[in-house]
Amino acid sequence: MASTRIREARESDCGDIMRMIRELAEFEKLSHQVKISEEALRADGFGENPFFHCLVAEIIPAPGESQGSLVVGYGLYYFIYSTWTGRNVYLEDIYVTPQYRGQGIGTKIIKKVAEVALNKGCSQFRLAVLDWNKKAVNLYKFLGAQDLTESEGWLSFRFEGEAMRELAGR
Amino acid sequence: MASTRIREARESDCGDIMRMIRELAEFEKLSHQVKISEEALRADGFGENPFFHCLVAEIIPAPGESQGSLVVGYGLYYFIYSTWTGRNVYLEDIYVTPQYRGQGIGTKIIKKVAEVALNKGCSQFRLAVLDWNKKAVNLYKFLGAQDLTESEGWLSFRFEGEAMRELAGR
Repeated sequence: MASTRIREARESDCGDIMRMIRELAEFEKLSHQVKISEEALRADGFGENPFFHCLVAEIIPAPGESQGSLVVGYGLYYFIYSTWTGRNVYLEDIYVTPQYRGQGIGTKIIKKVAEVALNKGCSQFRLAVLDWNKKAVNLYKFLGAQDLTESEGWLSFRFEGEAMRELAGR
Repeated sequence: MASTRIREARESDCGDIMRMIRELAEFEKLSHQVKISEEALRADGFGENPFFHCLVAEIIPAPGESQGSLVVGYGLYYFIYSTWTGRNVYLEDIYVTPQYRGQGIGTKIIKKVAEVALNKGCSQFRLAVLDWNKKAVNLYKFLGAQDLTESEGWLSFRFEGEAMRELAGR
């Protein structure tokens, strides 16, 4: 039987990661916001001082099966800094290809992120989820996450484009 | 007349920054979550590979005035990574001491963050605000920020403590 493993992404995974970034943005109905390229991912994540880290979920075929291994999910994270608890992890994206859902692959990615975070001395990890994505909301809560928008009232704000250039006096 | 300037924080500002971190957490009614120390700020922000960057607002006395300069606000930020737009800035904290509010110091800090972000090739910066902090919400909106919780439905989640150790199998 095929098995699943979670491993660190390699530069050669960037094609798969880029495809899944697009699939995730499409699922989130926010595809028009994707401006990044595979080349940028290679440069930004796999140079000397990477801007992010990435885990991939890979299906390993059973011995004797003809197809090769298959990347079917990813979790992209980076280190942030809390002025209350110090260095922490932010899980920017987590995604599993639709036909491989319901097998616990998302949970495996989250467990690995928790492991990485603790190994690096972080006491928390944060992530954001869309309110209508009930499956994800329920999974994160089931795994013990707290909804800080609900419990404390945190709202996400963003400056960009013209507003940002105006602020900077350009 | 005294004037205000926004400048990069120095290691010697950490005492002031720590005091203001505590004041901000108290204002946010979340003081019990502050576990950090001045020593940690010094080590984490002013070593070879700093985990964060910080701006401070300083009141410079007019020539002839007897008191020294005074740090009355700060903006603490770091670089994050969007899989849609690449490298961006996250403004973790922004704070102005109560008796110096209403003079545009917060706006000056935000403008400086926008400038830093654009200089570093970032097209956005993000921040979080508590829903009951109407003054801050209105200021950010007035300056052109988008409330992504309202417009797209983003919720903030956090894993920590026992839940995180269990996830990591500890």
